[in-house]
Amino acid sequence: EIFEAVEEVKKQQQQTYQAWLDLKQFWQGKSLLITAGPTYENIDPVRFIGNRSSGKMGFSIAEAAAKAGAKVTLITGPVQLAVSDQVKRINVRSAEQMFTAVQAHYSNADCFISAAAVADFRVADIAEQKIKKQSDTDEMTLTLVKNPDIVAWVAQQDDKPYVVGFAAETQNLIEYAKDKLQRKNLDMICANQVGETLGFEQSENALTLITSEQELELSLATKDELAVQLLKFISAQ
Amino acid sequence: EIFEAVEEVKKQQQQTYQAWLDLKQFWQGKSLLITAGPTYENIDPVRFIGNRSSGKMGFSIAEAAAKAGAKVTLITGPVQLAVSDQVKRINVRSAEQMFTAVQAHYSNADCFISAAAVADFRVADIAEQKIKKQSDTDEMTLTLVKNPDIVAWVAQQDDKPYVVGFAAETQNLIEYAKDKLQRKNLDMICANQVGETLGFEQSENALTLITSEQELELSLATKDELAVQLLKFISAQ
Repeated sequence: EIFEAVEEVKKQQQQTYQAWLDLKQFWQGKSLLITAGPTYENIDPVRFIGNRSSGKMGFSIAEAAAKAGAKVTLITGPVQLAVSDQVKRINVRSAEQMFTAVQAHYSNADCFISAAAVADFRVADIAEQKIKKQSDTDEMTLTLVKNPDIVAWVAQQDDKPYVVGFAAETQNLIEYAKDKLQRKNLDMICANQVGETLGFEQSENALTLITSEQELELSLATKDELAVQLLKFISAQ
Repeated sequence: EIFEAVEEVKKQQQQTYQAWLDLKQFWQGKSLLITAGPTYENIDPVRFIGNRSSGKMGFSIAEAAAKAGAKVTLITGPVQLAVSDQVKRINVRSAEQMFTAVQAHYSNADCFISAAAVADFRVADIAEQKIKKQSDTDEMTLTLVKNPDIVAWVAQQDDKPYVVGFAAETQNLIEYAKDKLQRKNLDMICANQVGETLGFEQSENALTLITSEQELELSLATKDELAVQLLKFISAQ
């Protein structure tokens, strides 16, 4: 019995090792462009509209892909995260800055993963000086205009790479994700349930990977583990 | 000459040591309540309005006061900072949460320092689910309502402690600060120039300390150094 158990562990180790070799074989020398983190949209020099994305999912994918031998360019919004030297990191703040960086880099990429939580809207008129509170007004109105849709733009290009999007939702997740996949012409989408203990600002996450033909539910795991599974899923497409 | 230089250094060391003893004598056993960091005002479960305050100035003051023997309670918005165990730390997110915490603690304090960058406005109606982008709308309006004025509220109480405010401005700094001192009935205000290389998100800062009778300009220094000078200034009032 002990002998059988040892054999079983050995077999599992060999399988894990073989899976890693397969992953390396696919990603070695491939070029991955990935966005991560939130974008911050300035209201004035001190105030902004942000979102709760920590950037962890995108950073985990970038790191795992670099380990597997890919040439990784990571375009990130404001986050408190470090990344190894093998990853080429580009820091941006707003959606428009992220868009400019993606436009400059997408055409060399074999795969584009849009893991950033890009703000849908930005402030119409950014104030050059700090907006002063008027003692006679109890209300204030902020007019917002639509930001460029970065992942949809990439997916529309003739020389588009393999395009992977993310859908982070608090409700009707799979339905929204499938609609987004089709509407934006993506090759794949990662559906990401956002709640009190899942998704944003967490180290663990649960993802469902969706293409027009497949749907793979990955159960709760660390973002590092999910990153490897996601890269494996892409390599199998 | 060498002898004179040595004597000079000795004298300076003695003065520094004496100044530290004086500071300790004043703050020993005193109770300090201090707020720090930004507040984040939720738009929906994933989006919020924030500001660039790093919390460093408030944390430096809290740490320096605790070292000088004060009992320090630090109420802080979302920041990436640690504080030593001698400081009692209370984490909050929104201005309303910060207000509730201040109301619960101000009456035991000998001194209240409002170093937090409290949002002047919050979103009128916080969405319970993530707001979906409508493909047919290019604009969105966000209605904001005034937040409670925490430092003004404390300064209005009969049993108010010694109240110190901050004014962070991009222009007309001293003028705004003096107006705020008087209008909000503060005992002292720290005028804080905010710009590309000063104030928010920086380790160095320049402050002007203002009371109804005095004005002391502190030149560019680390926030730790400014914290000690600020505590010294308060002890001399």
